[in-house]
Amino acid sequence: MSNIQVAVNSQVQEVLEELKKRTIKNVFFVACGGSSALMYPSKYVMDREAVQIVSDLYSSNEFIHRNPKGLGKESLVILCSHSGTTPETVEATKFAKDKGAMTVALTNEPQSPLAKNADYYVKYEWGDEAKAINTNYSIMYQLTFGLLQVAEKNDQLAKIMASLENLQSVYDKALKKEEDSARQFGELHKDEPIIYTMASGSNYGVAYSFSICILMEMQWIHSHAIHAGEYFHGPFEIIDEKVPFIILLGLDETRPLEERALSFSERYGKKLTVLDAKEFDLEGIDEEVKGYIAPLVLNRVLRQYADRLADERNHPLSKRRYMWKVEY
Amino acid sequence: MSNIQVAVNSQVQEVLEELKKRTIKNVFFVACGGSSALMYPSKYVMDREAVQIVSDLYSSNEFIHRNPKGLGKESLVILCSHSGTTPETVEATKFAKDKGAMTVALTNEPQSPLAKNADYYVKYEWGDEAKAINTNYSIMYQLTFGLLQVAEKNDQLAKIMASLENLQSVYDKALKKEEDSARQFGELHKDEPIIYTMASGSNYGVAYSFSICILMEMQWIHSHAIHAGEYFHGPFEIIDEKVPFIILLGLDETRPLEERALSFSERYGKKLTVLDAKEFDLEGIDEEVKGYIAPLVLNRVLRQYADRLADERNHPLSKRRYMWKVEY
Repeated sequence: MSNIQVAVNSQVQEVLEELKKRTIKNVFFVACGGSSALMYPSKYVMDREAVQIVSDLYSSNEFIHRNPKGLGKESLVILCSHSGTTPETVEATKFAKDKGAMTVALTNEPQSPLAKNADYYVKYEWGDEAKAINTNYSIMYQLTFGLLQVAEKNDQLAKIMASLENLQSVYDKALKKEEDSARQFGELHKDEPIIYTMASGSNYGVAYSFSICILMEMQWIHSHAIHAGEYFHGPFEIIDEKVPFIILLGLDETRPLEERALSFSERYGKKLTVLDAKEFDLEGIDEEVKGYIAPLVLNRVLRQYADRLADERNHPLSKRRYMWKVEY
Repeated sequence: MSNIQVAVNSQVQEVLEELKKRTIKNVFFVACGGSSALMYPSKYVMDREAVQIVSDLYSSNEFIHRNPKGLGKESLVILCSHSGTTPETVEATKFAKDKGAMTVALTNEPQSPLAKNADYYVKYEWGDEAKAINTNYSIMYQLTFGLLQVAEKNDQLAKIMASLENLQSVYDKALKKEEDSARQFGELHKDEPIIYTMASGSNYGVAYSFSICILMEMQWIHSHAIHAGEYFHGPFEIIDEKVPFIILLGLDETRPLEERALSFSERYGKKLTVLDAKEFDLEGIDEEVKGYIAPLVLNRVLRQYADRLADERNHPLSKRRYMWKVEY
């Protein structure tokens, strides 16, 4: 891969070397909750870019019980769990291996059951010191675009790597730009019982993650991630001047869906928080892959919104009543 | 197809005759809102049964803008719109045809733009006089299992047809059995600001439909269809004795996910409405396809719950503030 100026993660490279020896017919993206949400952009990429390889995305336990007939020796199953201990995802790894599939685990914990059970694992970085190119969403893209290059001679990997190399500075600038807006969001929404999120295409997973992980799990605020295209076929009847919406505008091909949803919401809603990737300084991100990179930036910025909301509510993001505390 | 005792719909049969002449590589299920939700069970069926043919399900406008690379001459695109006028779905039909795909439209209106633009259309019955075997979910299954028989020699169609033939009597008995429970549901929930629904596998679309069409669209009640497997990775932190949940238990392979979600919810929630397909009299439904038929029964019974909720709230299911009334 001499055309890559920026090298892929060395553990990803090992996976790609193995993939060169194999025929892959389909890819399954398998994880739970936030770890599943970070795979949505890769499903979008596969749909847009893959000529032969097909893909599906399932919550781990659904994957096991649904038992897709296409799962077999020509399958690649990519799994993710931050701690590497999520029981359903560890189980899904064993299940996929038993079917003869190649399994690759993403995790922050190389000593975890997930890493130990998978054929390959890739450790991603996490936390304030981690550089964006080494974090979970970026590693997912290195795997996905790497697979596309190895298996289908797709030429986007170099552009993605060059862009990911510059992603940290994009994050830093976006976070600085959004500081006041995030604080304002926290102040305005601290007493709201429900907050909807909305997006489409590669950005939908970001809305989903904010809805189920940040709002429902970490803040005990009611929520639902509405697909911007589905909005006009049911959900939009819920909006009025009292109902808060976070509307994401990305840069991919489905942006017209998000723009239409925003335009309607501006007429009948009042409590709107709009994050538009167009307004961020994306210097260093290749023009051709901006649509794919936007969800990563939106996701990072939304975390700042979550932090400010938690501050205002005196409800730390780490607070739980059931998770890790009771049997389930 | 001499092994079929009960004949498939004659328009479905025309589609199947055409399919015998073609090679189909992939199927796209394309529609919006409730018409999309009724295709979820068919996606589940394809995942479980199809050896070669792969499938995906998209909201119509997402389908157009995502523009899946696999869409082409060996694609079958199944679209649905009750009125046949949903602009995005009509547009998706033209889009798919331009790509060389075979298009089949399901609609209640044979004279509609959707029916006229698609290569084939199938009119389904609707309303109180319609027999279950001729309604939308059943017609979808005739197409899906018909395709599987024609293209892959799958042998489930005869069992499905025999079961669909008996579905009306299953509906009638289930509706009678649930009369009191539906009334009680309406009374207990008339002042609730939010009601969650939950299911997995082939039943998830039913939960989704009730959430976005019945609750959000027709009753202006906040909602979100939670996937029973995802529940434990975020959403479950929202439940307490004050938060109402409708939990569906089907009969397919993912039932353990729904049972686990119910079991947890019974410990920490109080306002639970449980619809368990096991408790219905499924006489005449083939044992081997009960899992596939359960969502149809759950969906029909839930409509009765919707009616009673609407009665109690003096908010007719036909009432809208935006749909058909303003530009969008």
